[in-house]
Amino acid sequence: MTSVQDEYYEFAVELARDAAKVLKNSIGSLKIMKEKQGDWDLVTQYDTKIEEIILGQIKIKYPRHKFIAEESTGQNLPELTNDPTWIVDPIDGTTNFIHGFPHTCVVIGLAMEKDMVLGIVYNPILEQFFSARKGKGAFLNGERIKTSAVQDISKALICFEPGFIKVDYLREYMVERIETIARKAQGIRTLGVAAITLCYVALGVVEAYPIEGPGISTWDIAAASLIISEAGGVVVDRVTGEKVNLMKPRAIGACNQKIAKELIRILRDADARVDARKK
Amino acid sequence: MTSVQDEYYEFAVELARDAAKVLKNSIGSLKIMKEKQGDWDLVTQYDTKIEEIILGQIKIKYPRHKFIAEESTGQNLPELTNDPTWIVDPIDGTTNFIHGFPHTCVVIGLAMEKDMVLGIVYNPILEQFFSARKGKGAFLNGERIKTSAVQDISKALICFEPGFIKVDYLREYMVERIETIARKAQGIRTLGVAAITLCYVALGVVEAYPIEGPGISTWDIAAASLIISEAGGVVVDRVTGEKVNLMKPRAIGACNQKIAKELIRILRDADARVDARKK
Repeated sequence: MTSVQDEYYEFAVELARDAAKVLKNSIGSLKIMKEKQGDWDLVTQYDTKIEEIILGQIKIKYPRHKFIAEESTGQNLPELTNDPTWIVDPIDGTTNFIHGFPHTCVVIGLAMEKDMVLGIVYNPILEQFFSARKGKGAFLNGERIKTSAVQDISKALICFEPGFIKVDYLREYMVERIETIARKAQGIRTLGVAAITLCYVALGVVEAYPIEGPGISTWDIAAASLIISEAGGVVVDRVTGEKVNLMKPRAIGACNQKIAKELIRILRDADARVDARKK
Repeated sequence: MTSVQDEYYEFAVELARDAAKVLKNSIGSLKIMKEKQGDWDLVTQYDTKIEEIILGQIKIKYPRHKFIAEESTGQNLPELTNDPTWIVDPIDGTTNFIHGFPHTCVVIGLAMEKDMVLGIVYNPILEQFFSARKGKGAFLNGERIKTSAVQDISKALICFEPGFIKVDYLREYMVERIETIARKAQGIRTLGVAAITLCYVALGVVEAYPIEGPGISTWDIAAASLIISEAGGVVVDRVTGEKVNLMKPRAIGACNQKIAKELIRILRDADARVDARKK
């Protein structure tokens, strides 16, 4: 017997596949680019087109459901209600998409009663389909995945986005953070795409990913946060260490609580050094 | 009619495929790790095993040829002679391999008369087989590739390895460089593997990659340098701007001379600021 939840999931899988076809077919095409907050926050005609495909199909199938979607919602986030709410990023990793750098994806999540119940992150270039349903585990291309067992930050690969050095008010903090992480962790990796990187934490191939900054919003984190937690990891607020607030994400995705806590401490100390210098 | 060069190439392709099977089958296995220069320079039993497979087959087929290979040559590089010399990295991206981060590869190159005549960089995890022969173009999975046409560094994705922040004498330079690149370029990406990243420059999905530091040697650069030049790009010495010295690489791989020169200038200015502060 198919439950409503199964029906939502099957619908979302088809939707992600349809949308990803457009992404895959257009990655080599000429793109019309517009800057949103700066030259590190771009949008193309394909972001809009893919979002229209996804939202259009949801509106037909589930006309009473709500949306939070990157291109139509923009920076004025609505309140997350108890209603079924589809959280969509038509192209995460738009700069990668523009360059053909093969880490770019379609993101579809569904929240019910303010809680994520399904998440899909699909990279059709490298054919990586990450998926999770609440209570039913996380998967890559249908195979169960779990986070890394690493407990010691010196053995951890940490993903980090030094691109936020561009943002004036963040610059010194970002520089101090990257220096600190490089010294403490085994290595740093940067893919330039939040949802896929969080899924790499879920897959167990990197240990943690602090992600926040202008342009990082609900749709970058929501679906992948379920994929991480269903894979055994955590997505926490970088300051409080509590479960991340999806509507105001300053997130750390991590393979386990120990690594998350250690990273919170390292970043807090790095920021404190910057603040002390500014005094 | 098959030339000797064709024969070498066909042999190298088979060799790379054989070696990559071991890499692919062992990426999920337990690895015995040893540090070489530090915890950022690791070797596993599979590096040694794959190198034995590659060198063993070359010795049978071409007993008079020479080798420069990561695990057997080590830090004491021989002189590059006019003899046919196979330049081999059994696993580039060993830290990625250990973590299962999917950017890791087998690297095989052949120099004749001190010049690269063939290069293969094969990532069997993402099934990306990069290859080039001198004068015959560069290819990914058999399809011709070319470097990016971007001329302006503000539109460029630059790959960079902040991991060298770990190395005491490089720390301040690396921090200043990453801050500068982040401000000037469109974005920074870090894959943690030299040969594949250089091939991404060849593929046209990133614009440049400065790569040097302890542990970076001939086998990281040689094969991929041919793949870049056959794709229309350049690999230059970071200081002189001349063609890189493969036996002493402090390299910048770039999509074209303009981007290479701009990056040389940016890095020289960044280093000069560090030197000025130290006085």
